[in-house]
Amino acid sequence: MKFISFRESEKEKLGVLSKDGSLAIELSSFRLDKDFVDMTDLIKNISEFDIKKVKSIILENSIEELITYPIEKIKLCPPIKKPIHDIVCVGVNYQEHLEETRESFDDNFIEPKKTVYFSKRVTEAIGPEDTIVSHADINDQLDYEVELAVIIGTKGVNIPKEKAEDYIFGYTIMNDISARALQQQHLQWYRGKSLDTFTSLGPVVVHKGEIPFPVELNVYSRVNGELRQNSNTKRFLTDIPSIIAEISNGMTLEPGDIIATGTPSGVGMGFNPPRYMKSGDVVECEIENIGILRNTIE
Amino acid sequence: MKFISFRESEKEKLGVLSKDGSLAIELSSFRLDKDFVDMTDLIKNISEFDIKKVKSIILENSIEELITYPIEKIKLCPPIKKPIHDIVCVGVNYQEHLEETRESFDDNFIEPKKTVYFSKRVTEAIGPEDTIVSHADINDQLDYEVELAVIIGTKGVNIPKEKAEDYIFGYTIMNDISARALQQQHLQWYRGKSLDTFTSLGPVVVHKGEIPFPVELNVYSRVNGELRQNSNTKRFLTDIPSIIAEISNGMTLEPGDIIATGTPSGVGMGFNPPRYMKSGDVVECEIENIGILRNTIE
Repeated sequence: MKFISFRESEKEKLGVLSKDGSLAIELSSFRLDKDFVDMTDLIKNISEFDIKKVKSIILENSIEELITYPIEKIKLCPPIKKPIHDIVCVGVNYQEHLEETRESFDDNFIEPKKTVYFSKRVTEAIGPEDTIVSHADINDQLDYEVELAVIIGTKGVNIPKEKAEDYIFGYTIMNDISARALQQQHLQWYRGKSLDTFTSLGPVVVHKGEIPFPVELNVYSRVNGELRQNSNTKRFLTDIPSIIAEISNGMTLEPGDIIATGTPSGVGMGFNPPRYMKSGDVVECEIENIGILRNTIE
Repeated sequence: MKFISFRESEKEKLGVLSKDGSLAIELSSFRLDKDFVDMTDLIKNISEFDIKKVKSIILENSIEELITYPIEKIKLCPPIKKPIHDIVCVGVNYQEHLEETRESFDDNFIEPKKTVYFSKRVTEAIGPEDTIVSHADINDQLDYEVELAVIIGTKGVNIPKEKAEDYIFGYTIMNDISARALQQQHLQWYRGKSLDTFTSLGPVVVHKGEIPFPVELNVYSRVNGELRQNSNTKRFLTDIPSIIAEISNGMTLEPGDIIATGTPSGVGMGFNPPRYMKSGDVVECEIENIGILRNTIE
């Protein structure tokens, strides 16, 4: 089941994709127990019963009574536009990306002793039909990072590894757009990760019921059609249960929280010479069973 | 004018302090143009006219018709309990604290080339009457940092230095409680700064009209009554206009955003041997014209 936020007739709405992905189905037309103001509200408040109901209707494709739109007639929005907190990001979580980062950062890199966590401010996320602002006046090293983003569904603290999946609502794709110059100059990575339009999310939120656990999904990125990143989430240095257990150790996670799990090797800074993005480039982040998140650089 | 959030008769309310600070005055009793659900809503929506009205009533002490409570009869809450974004923090922004950090972090410190920005997640802030959880099971280096926190009042991006004050609503005190072990182990400072109860805010939000600009305020911290930090915000390495100009360059700030401006030398890790906080300790952060933010370690 793939939840979406979309714009139709000047209104932002919640929906789900039809079985074949060709239709956006308005969630309100399912007559669920509750209405939701946005995706975070849905994540927090939708009942198991209603999830099952929507799922079975989609699977059986019994959607004649529902309000539907051809997918090409609506605008897909970022599934979560204003996350309740900055995004919790895991740094250097694939071996080859750790190596390319060490080499590229040179004197600005300290060998991590434990999993690296940093945060990405999201004043407003962009979605699959929005453009990325390059901020070329302050950064000439615009880079992409495809990441599996885990969305928390249940409030929790000190979550044991074995229970981690219970706290997940679902998954989406994040392009962790990065200004490499700023990321290094300011010592901490925060500013270089947090510029306006630097968080692209989508195209959908896949409910965890669709993704077998442990999560083993192919992850790709392409720039102007050329494959740049190509890995699988089974190669994480710190896996999802360990991330959730560690980051929730002393820090309460809340429904709607987003945890970005790190990017594989093949980012622009990893090439010699580096291959950063420029105006007009099209960057695609793809994750198996979720979809393709495509953005153009303004 | 000092705005407060307080709890009275099981309800959370907004208020202002009386001229002599002895009374909490319920904001709703001023009959302003609007009611506000919380401090962020107030910051975003209160009119200049209403600010002037409240200010003149407080100054003239003409509060007979208003609903007031002796300050010792109410519980002061964190002025902003759920900030709209993680707190934007400036690192090592006083020369002597830069030096003590370099020395203490040793191999874990890279010399910053520019102002350091990082973020502090706030699942829920604590206030002046709450206790700090030590998280002793995961960190044995619990430290304090008194900081002037600037609260943004007006949405803005690419704010010029000369206009910075226009975007400020007011000021409060933040104790940037830090788990030094975690701060270093995870390479990025985020996790060591973001544990539950690690953001103490208050006791009040002082409207910017009360604080001459540029801001030159004495800043102190004490542990169990012993003076530990003692400086003045005029000693910032990067001053408030420069911080606002730089961090808003490409990153939109919103009303209710909190920017913590860094701490002076004298934190626990700066002593040899270090003097970290332990259960039962009382830590006080004081800033001239704002007040004292006092917390006990659980």
